[in-house]
Amino acid sequence: MAYNLLKGKKGIIFGALDSNSIAWKVAEQAYEEGAVFTLSNTPTALRFGQLDELAAKCNAEIIAADATNVADLSNVFEKSMEVLGGKVDFVLHSIGMSLNVRKKRVYNDLDYNFLNKTLDISAISFHKMLQVAFKMDAINSWGSVVALSYIAAQRTLYGYNDMADAKSLLESIARSFGYIYGRERKIRVNTISQSPTMTTAGSGVKGMGGLMDFTERMSPLGNASSEECANYCITLFSDLSKKVTMQNLYHDGGFSNMGMSLRAMKMYNKSLGEDLDIE
Amino acid sequence: MAYNLLKGKKGIIFGALDSNSIAWKVAEQAYEEGAVFTLSNTPTALRFGQLDELAAKCNAEIIAADATNVADLSNVFEKSMEVLGGKVDFVLHSIGMSLNVRKKRVYNDLDYNFLNKTLDISAISFHKMLQVAFKMDAINSWGSVVALSYIAAQRTLYGYNDMADAKSLLESIARSFGYIYGRERKIRVNTISQSPTMTTAGSGVKGMGGLMDFTERMSPLGNASSEECANYCITLFSDLSKKVTMQNLYHDGGFSNMGMSLRAMKMYNKSLGEDLDIE
Amino acid sequence: MAYNLLKGKKGIIFGALDSNSIAWKVAEQAYEEGAVFTLSNTPTALRFGQLDELAAKCNAEIIAADATNVADLSNVFEKSMEVLGGKVDFVLHSIGMSLNVRKKRVYNDLDYNFLNKTLDISAISFHKMLQVAFKMDAINSWGSVVALSYIAAQRTLYGYNDMADAKSLLESIARSFGYIYGRERKIRVNTISQSPTMTTAGSGVKGMGGLMDFTERMSPLGNASSEECANYCITLFSDLSKKVTMQNLYHDGGFSNMGMSLRAMKMYNKSLGEDLDIE
Amino acid sequence: MAYNLLKGKKGIIFGALDSNSIAWKVAEQAYEEGAVFTLSNTPTALRFGQLDELAAKCNAEIIAADATNVADLSNVFEKSMEVLGGKVDFVLHSIGMSLNVRKKRVYNDLDYNFLNKTLDISAISFHKMLQVAFKMDAINSWGSVVALSYIAAQRTLYGYNDMADAKSLLESIARSFGYIYGRERKIRVNTISQSPTMTTAGSGVKGMGGLMDFTERMSPLGNASSEECANYCITLFSDLSKKVTMQNLYHDGGFSNMGMSLRAMKMYNKSLGEDLDIE
Repeated sequence: MAYNLLKGKKGIIFGALDSNSIAWKVAEQAYEEGAVFTLSNTPTALRFGQLDELAAKCNAEIIAADATNVADLSNVFEKSMEVLGGKVDFVLHSIGMSLNVRKKRVYNDLDYNFLNKTLDISAISFHKMLQVAFKMDAINSWGSVVALSYIAAQRTLYGYNDMADAKSLLESIARSFGYIYGRERKIRVNTISQSPTMTTAGSGVKGMGGLMDFTERMSPLGNASSEECANYCITLFSDLSKKVTMQNLYHDGGFSNMGMSLRAMKMYNKSLGEDLDIE
Repeated sequence: MAYNLLKGKKGIIFGALDSNSIAWKVAEQAYEEGAVFTLSNTPTALRFGQLDELAAKCNAEIIAADATNVADLSNVFEKSMEVLGGKVDFVLHSIGMSLNVRKKRVYNDLDYNFLNKTLDISAISFHKMLQVAFKMDAINSWGSVVALSYIAAQRTLYGYNDMADAKSLLESIARSFGYIYGRERKIRVNTISQSPTMTTAGSGVKGMGGLMDFTERMSPLGNASSEECANYCITLFSDLSKKVTMQNLYHDGGFSNMGMSLRAMKMYNKSLGEDLDIE
Repeated sequence: MAYNLLKGKKGIIFGALDSNSIAWKVAEQAYEEGAVFTLSNTPTALRFGQLDELAAKCNAEIIAADATNVADLSNVFEKSMEVLGGKVDFVLHSIGMSLNVRKKRVYNDLDYNFLNKTLDISAISFHKMLQVAFKMDAINSWGSVVALSYIAAQRTLYGYNDMADAKSLLESIARSFGYIYGRERKIRVNTISQSPTMTTAGSGVKGMGGLMDFTERMSPLGNASSEECANYCITLFSDLSKKVTMQNLYHDGGFSNMGMSLRAMKMYNKSLGEDLDIE
Repeated sequence: MAYNLLKGKKGIIFGALDSNSIAWKVAEQAYEEGAVFTLSNTPTALRFGQLDELAAKCNAEIIAADATNVADLSNVFEKSMEVLGGKVDFVLHSIGMSLNVRKKRVYNDLDYNFLNKTLDISAISFHKMLQVAFKMDAINSWGSVVALSYIAAQRTLYGYNDMADAKSLLESIARSFGYIYGRERKIRVNTISQSPTMTTAGSGVKGMGGLMDFTERMSPLGNASSEECANYCITLFSDLSKKVTMQNLYHDGGFSNMGMSLRAMKMYNKSLGEDLDIE
């Protein structure tokens, strides 16, 4: 079901780890749609993930980089332009990590060094990426940059911790830099706010199962999968969405605009010991 | 605990029915805060409610009116200015009704005459009220108009039916007319988006119990009561909020910005047959 | 630059009048992308517009209908299924009209019969369309319904009058019915909030030139054209956005998330008689 | 015009510098409304500002603190409880600073050490304040915490630079910590999004004059002054807004919900050399 939507387009995809990653799916779809691109992730991720497999499949070069490191990022854009033969047309930022979450520091007992790392890795890296590319003039006019976000940026979810704040910052950076990129280069910058997704990272989160059951029942179309998210990314990288910029776009089966669904209410009511007849 | 916040202020309160009504509580608080006002509701509501009791308590005159009828509304403002001795300083609109809900016409099988009535009673009545008062120049500069709304205007809740659309329309009218009232008269117009509340009207809604349990557990401060809503109204009628206009203000214990709380998740998980340890 | 994104898809496009219409451009693009569809507009529009030309070009049948008339709408869906050989996959609603605007009744002097017409034509018609199609089971699973909206639904613009309220109502209907369509049929319903566009309807609005200059300078990518809007519609009708529903999607060059741009500020400052050096 | 709204309440006010500061006005109003409180600012601010004058007037003790320093913040809460004789009921955070702005590093050429400082001073300081107070159990039940924000958190304004991102982060922290404070302590946390205000800090911003003229004409009630902002703060510290939490509340004369006003459009049109007759 390929449409050649990205035929002739060049890109960089940050953050693929294994076949559960959304970035992995984006790479697969982008490849099918005719794009050429490079892949980047941290040296650690390259060691523990299966990026080689993806690279082989997509005929893509891997460029290791710590996305919080400006020199590394410069290298990614430089090498990518070399390898791909020119400026890029799209960039995906799918990067996030919280040491506070990992080390079980709750939100009212944050370690501030960890918080700085959370923000640097999950949000400021996006600014660095955009600033490096801007200075190098590495993105073509009418190019498209997308970062993956989550509704925790707008609404508090138990346990999402300082990642909520990081996603708010990420979305703000998309708007702030989106203005400049739009004005100066005719390039768009958006975030996709994706359903909770069982990636290798996400699967470690406690209580993820219950939350995903809830969002599945709350969302009229159910949770969005990572394949579906990749499809949606493709439309944003394509030439068909040229005037969409500075937006946070919900790709969540409708969850974001639901207050209470029949299905979730029925399940909730079961827990109340009532089998309410709310047809 | 009176502060004289509304000392010397005159007002009109639409929509009190009985002591469960938010408008009833607003009247009681406004009276305690030193305001004088008239009360208005439909002839039917006057027959079935206990408005006489409230009127006596607050030393307020009752003026019957169908709020969808421009002549009736003109009469309310005219009589009120007569009785109160001049223009008014605040107006409360707490009016809403859906025949589709009452007659159990679901949203995908609406009766369009009923829908027109829902919109006319629950939203357009607010425009009529504002237009009548504007033409009569019936509200003092730096006066304040408030209408009661609900989060269904932003997010779909099972069973709220065409009232959701009515509330969206109501909030839009508050913005549209708020602009003109602000520009021409220095008068503010806002809506309060209140927690689900067990009023006499609300108590008839099927499944209301489960929903209120859910919102209670989702809201970090719990559902807001009608007394608390009345308190909040007072701040908006007072001189301390003079530059707040065209806003929809959530008075809901935090519900509107929650994605998932620990307490609601625990309850939900019970229904999954899992007693998840998500401390 | 066709991708076959809508190959094999059937649709109905409401609201094309002449080559300035967004719906006209959507029809052209949908045709290029491989879709078959019918066109519908009012008998008056058919008389004064150039729909025959479009129909010939796209090999599409025209079915006259007053979109506020349930019987007419039933006929459109019935005939369309006949002509196209089955259920449809996409529907575009591009319909709006205000007699208050036309007859120069300002927002604080609305004619309420005109207001009812504005709401019926511009918003409730969307509910009728969705209800008729729902009852006839006329849309395929994973189909997509789009209505065109405008940012006046969220923010007040001088002169947009009761169309602002109509667009709020329209967007609310998209959410409310989007929930049911999602849950019951796996069909998505969204609105696109498009830049101000010089359609034949829009060109009559007083002060439209100044507003479009302002939004052009405020939007980092400039105003979105109707061709670009049509492109974006195609992505929403395609299979690549299956989990996007109940959303209002800004297609506006970034305007919606701008507070003040350098270019608009410079122009504004000129009017202040200051050539402020705000580099 | 005092109402005793804060009679018996204790508080801490961070960020007053001189009589142009919003925090200064809040202190004056809180004093008039019967509150007792301490004042805090950095040693540098204490040296260059006129806080002694305010302290004398309000009978308040000054406690110097770098709000990015956890030990300093602990000291502020400890000393305040000592001085005031118990836990506090309200806290104001009115702190913000960007070295990138000061040093004229534009948003596409940020210094990342400066950015870290911007975020630490303007946003993370709020988390530190809340975490310190949480651990010390320094705020009474039904207490109220307010931080001052700006619409740049939602919409990009030319020249606001990395302060926009800081305000987004600040508002996210208010939500995230507001959930925990609400759930555990029945304490509310909100932000006020205030009109652009000519404080001593603000007055240095280039192009501030033109922007304030624009927002004045766009806002139906005009820009909100710092006195008016202080009044609004008082309502949020009072017992009348107990169930308002996790909100960002616009105090801006209606600006946030305006798309285009007649007055701003007329001024803008002048710059186009057209004196458009858009009555």
